[in-house]
Amino acid sequence: MQLLVVPDSFKESLSAKEVADAIARGIHSVDPEITVKQLPFSDGGEGALDLLQNLFEGELVTTSTINAMGRSIKAPYFRFADRKAAWIELSQASGLAQIEVDKRNPMLASTYGTGLQIRHALDHGAEEIYLGIGGSATNDGGTGILSALGGLFSDAEGEMLLPGGGFLTELDHIDVEAIPQFQLKVACDVNNPLLGKQGATAVYGPQKGATPETEPQLEAGLANFSKHIELLTQKSVAEVPGAGAAGGCAAGLHGLLGAELVSGFELLAELSQLEEQIAASDLIITAEGRIDGQSLEGKLPVGVAKLAKKHDKPVVVLAGSIGEHLDPLYALGIDAVFSIQSKPCTLEESISNAAELLESTAQRVFKLYQTAKK
Amino acid sequence: MQLLVVPDSFKESLSAKEVADAIARGIHSVDPEITVKQLPFSDGGEGALDLLQNLFEGELVTTSTINAMGRSIKAPYFRFADRKAAWIELSQASGLAQIEVDKRNPMLASTYGTGLQIRHALDHGAEEIYLGIGGSATNDGGTGILSALGGLFSDAEGEMLLPGGGFLTELDHIDVEAIPQFQLKVACDVNNPLLGKQGATAVYGPQKGATPETEPQLEAGLANFSKHIELLTQKSVAEVPGAGAAGGCAAGLHGLLGAELVSGFELLAELSQLEEQIAASDLIITAEGRIDGQSLEGKLPVGVAKLAKKHDKPVVVLAGSIGEHLDPLYALGIDAVFSIQSKPCTLEESISNAAELLESTAQRVFKLYQTAKK
Repeated sequence: MQLLVVPDSFKESLSAKEVADAIARGIHSVDPEITVKQLPFSDGGEGALDLLQNLFEGELVTTSTINAMGRSIKAPYFRFADRKAAWIELSQASGLAQIEVDKRNPMLASTYGTGLQIRHALDHGAEEIYLGIGGSATNDGGTGILSALGGLFSDAEGEMLLPGGGFLTELDHIDVEAIPQFQLKVACDVNNPLLGKQGATAVYGPQKGATPETEPQLEAGLANFSKHIELLTQKSVAEVPGAGAAGGCAAGLHGLLGAELVSGFELLAELSQLEEQIAASDLIITAEGRIDGQSLEGKLPVGVAKLAKKHDKPVVVLAGSIGEHLDPLYALGIDAVFSIQSKPCTLEESISNAAELLESTAQRVFKLYQTAKK
Repeated sequence: MQLLVVPDSFKESLSAKEVADAIARGIHSVDPEITVKQLPFSDGGEGALDLLQNLFEGELVTTSTINAMGRSIKAPYFRFADRKAAWIELSQASGLAQIEVDKRNPMLASTYGTGLQIRHALDHGAEEIYLGIGGSATNDGGTGILSALGGLFSDAEGEMLLPGGGFLTELDHIDVEAIPQFQLKVACDVNNPLLGKQGATAVYGPQKGATPETEPQLEAGLANFSKHIELLTQKSVAEVPGAGAAGGCAAGLHGLLGAELVSGFELLAELSQLEEQIAASDLIITAEGRIDGQSLEGKLPVGVAKLAKKHDKPVVVLAGSIGEHLDPLYALGIDAVFSIQSKPCTLEESISNAAELLESTAQRVFKLYQTAKK
């Protein structure tokens, strides 16, 4: 019998690796001989670099670059050992977390630093780049990345634009011919279009420092950018779901480099051969801090269940807490859901004992499974 | 597939019947076609009359009798429909609960009222009596019951003794020849011997109103009673485990009527053909308010597991709370244990939502079981 353990992290208490370890301990307490394959996973949100180190052979490469406001920093990316590929997290160089709140300004903020990381990876042999976007401080449509790779964005006078979303209204000409060929997949977990009320500026601008005064300028800049992409490529990117991710970064990279926009889960699943691993397993155990039948979008157990259903494999979810109405989960291919509590307890107790509770829940669940199998 | 649901009650929240119903609902929410046999059960403690009505065909028969202090009362017993048998609870007529605390006096208290109930049952066709003892107000060695059935207990002058444990020191002659033949099984869940520090008087006397002044007299009375049983029958009853139950009632009925002393669980199991029902089922689900690996003695799931193990049937326990160190439970034949919480919650929430939590836990457990079976 082979088990596959593919958990998410338990926010505020355990990393995905710690969750996987606890579940594996529980299973091995029932039968030390069972093969338990651990894939500590993620729904594709932040924290990917830690995760990648658990999932794949490879190393973190730390390079000199700049943050979104142009200050020199060091930032890491992940270089795969067994393929010519690198995973770069936009938030590492161009993230909001790098910029103090009162210094945030999407008019000037640029993804150039992320572009420098990509160039470093390409210069060191990568032929494929996976770019996780999320937590960006920018609204530049990815023009910073494209510039760092050799792209040119100029105004009607032929003058190169200054970095930042505030100058895209002046954009009149795009030249990306100098950018080298490489495969680019963008992991993006939002569906926002580029423009409008659900667009990059309106929804994510304010947290990046956009004000009622600068928002119209930023919106007009992305609209102008989109128009010029279409003029150059005959591709309309504004309405592509997810084009608004990371301040329009997804739109620019999709439109000008042909980047594929995928969900973080899909990309991790592809890279880790999750589907093949599911197909080769007898039972799949996944885990999530909280699960219910309403908020299914982007939840790891749902992604796992969809793959498992294709191969008719059983999926059990262990959760820190279970909400109401699980029927939609069952319909998607989740076979059973268990909460980790062994008795009445407070949220704090549940969080601080999470590893132990997960271990004993995994033990109980696997005991029942094994009993039923007999 | 046939499921057997054999739960105990959840104290302070649900009767065994309510527990069984909730579990059955959970199973049927997964598959309405599953045959679920419900045996709301008990570990043999008090409350047997309610339970019997759920487990067996029959009726409560309420008769006129007296309480332990001689006052007229009405008290019920259970008459089986499909066998010539009655289940009588000593606590109904001769119980502590019937006597106000300041009126309790084991020197005078008698089991005569319970004897009247037995006689009524025998007069109405019963050939077999099951006597649940527990909660008695008496220390009379069962001489009250025996007297009501026709036994004579007299002193050296040939005078009949007055009722109560206080006069047994004067016992000089026992005559039980007039008592009719019948099968008697006594359900007793304590192991105390008749005499000494672990005996009836020392352990249970004080709660029945024995005082430092009367205790020696009561102890001496039971010792004298035991001596005369041995003179008459050549049977030594004082050291029989459980002989001290119900103020020595078990000793008297075992010694003078050959009553079999069994555990409440064993007796209920025999009457309900629990073992046969287990053997005919594919999965047994039992439940208990709280379970751990330490306090196994007399717990229903342990009794169920022992029977199930004989037939190699899987047993799952659902519990209101799970304690530490479950390995001894697993060793006894329990395959898996699940707690009913679905998230962090208070004890009060867990108690007040117990039925719903049980239902959803049973659903989850059965879903996993069914999944594994495929």
